[in-house]
Amino acid sequence: MNNSQSRPIQLGRISYTNAWPVFHHFDPEALPFRTEVHSDLPATLNRKLKIGDIDMAAISSYAYGISSDSYYVLPNLSVSSFGRVQSILLFLKSPLEKVLHGKIALTTASATSVNLLKIIMEKFYGGKPTYEDAEPSLENMLENADAALLIGDHAIRASWTNHGYRVLDLGEVWNLWTGQWMTFALWAVRKDAAYRDPESFQAIYEALIESKGKSSRDMGPVIRKAMDQIGGTEAYWQNYFSHLCHDFGPDQKTGLQLYFQYARELGLLTSEPDLSELPSPTRNR
Amino acid sequence: MNNSQSRPIQLGRISYTNAWPVFHHFDPEALPFRTEVHSDLPATLNRKLKIGDIDMAAISSYAYGISSDSYYVLPNLSVSSFGRVQSILLFLKSPLEKVLHGKIALTTASATSVNLLKIIMEKFYGGKPTYEDAEPSLENMLENADAALLIGDHAIRASWTNHGYRVLDLGEVWNLWTGQWMTFALWAVRKDAAYRDPESFQAIYEALIESKGKSSRDMGPVIRKAMDQIGGTEAYWQNYFSHLCHDFGPDQKTGLQLYFQYARELGLLTSEPDLSELPSPTRNR
Repeated sequence: MNNSQSRPIQLGRISYTNAWPVFHHFDPEALPFRTEVHSDLPATLNRKLKIGDIDMAAISSYAYGISSDSYYVLPNLSVSSFGRVQSILLFLKSPLEKVLHGKIALTTASATSVNLLKIIMEKFYGGKPTYEDAEPSLENMLENADAALLIGDHAIRASWTNHGYRVLDLGEVWNLWTGQWMTFALWAVRKDAAYRDPESFQAIYEALIESKGKSSRDMGPVIRKAMDQIGGTEAYWQNYFSHLCHDFGPDQKTGLQLYFQYARELGLLTSEPDLSELPSPTRNR
Repeated sequence: MNNSQSRPIQLGRISYTNAWPVFHHFDPEALPFRTEVHSDLPATLNRKLKIGDIDMAAISSYAYGISSDSYYVLPNLSVSSFGRVQSILLFLKSPLEKVLHGKIALTTASATSVNLLKIIMEKFYGGKPTYEDAEPSLENMLENADAALLIGDHAIRASWTNHGYRVLDLGEVWNLWTGQWMTFALWAVRKDAAYRDPESFQAIYEALIESKGKSSRDMGPVIRKAMDQIGGTEAYWQNYFSHLCHDFGPDQKTGLQLYFQYARELGLLTSEPDLSELPSPTRNR
């Protein structure tokens, strides 16, 4: 294993609960080479991976799509749902008829869900709202907007408050219209890093798959951590995680390719993203 | 009180649970004149009231709209919801993208919900599906169609089965888009009958209002009857009835007028319906 590089491998870890099952049992200290872990919001990881500050991260699917030439996908890892996802929510202060030609305040925390929202509003519903970036605070966002998009733990916390707004679950709307899976995040590695040190990235990949497997056999530890750090009941989190899928097989890929196609039709993407997987350097070591 | 007519007053009673709270404590035997009660599906009552086989009935709001010149509304009675109604459901076998240009099988049991569906599919979603009348059996309907509309107790029973289809609640979609109430049924009396015998119809009206009031103070008897006759749990029916409203005030009227306006825009109605209320013959007897 090539461990001669001077800089430790830089890893990005989505801080949202929806990615926890993959990361929970992943221990970079147990790897036989040096790593540094950046725990952050998807948008920050998207940017850091793009400029090479980190080498490998869970990032927004859309961020993968616009830079796919520079990345490999880690096989069989994602944050996906077939229907309700419960943490990518549009809160509507005005009726949808008005929202479609009104103003929507957007969280700046991600990219996939912002573009999914545009697909839903413009392609599915035939609207043309204006969009405005905002800090993820529901009340502030809705002071000057007809609707507000929140994702991840901000969306979850807001869904628990007695807010009185109508709510659209973007995973549910996507599935209703297309009948497809939606993939919100992928694990990506920079091609230049993978060329430099293929065996280390293969080892990280295997450790992530092992961590995901442990979580899927017993969600208890992840659920307890969520209750400690975010709040909510055990039943809430059990239900929440049961609607998430962390695989990336043919079905999830078909759904994501349709998302990319619609994004191209709206001019949100210019070319067809390449979903090449990280090549395995030593299939039978 | 004028009780000289030879034919008993003919009353129509919607057989669906959603109208039970108004009818449950209504006892025509206690009235000081003769009546006959027809318990039936909305579509049958719509037809019978129109041709004069019955004099007064709970009917579909749309059926009221197309014949409003011949009818008075009974004040403050309706079947309405502000959002989810849980018994007017579109079951989707295909993704909505396909349904919008595919085939939808329709229950023939009502008129309001069929036209509400057309407003949603064509005006809100920009589709142009074909529609086909069918008996209210989910599996048979979906054999040759992309989606199926069921209402009332047929919809409730189908929602309890493990059907695997996506479901749109038409009350919820209406409220999401418009921010308005939706009124599914109204109590109507033929004007000719009301002119003939105003005091009897006033007495029937007052008995219905009294029955509605009793139900709203204690839903227990209605819930027990629903469990006996339809099945389901007490919690289901408690939740179900809590989402229904049997008043017809300014808010419900505004929502219904918007529904009528959209129906006119789609050519489903030709003129603006008149919502004149049954005049009170003797306000202080």
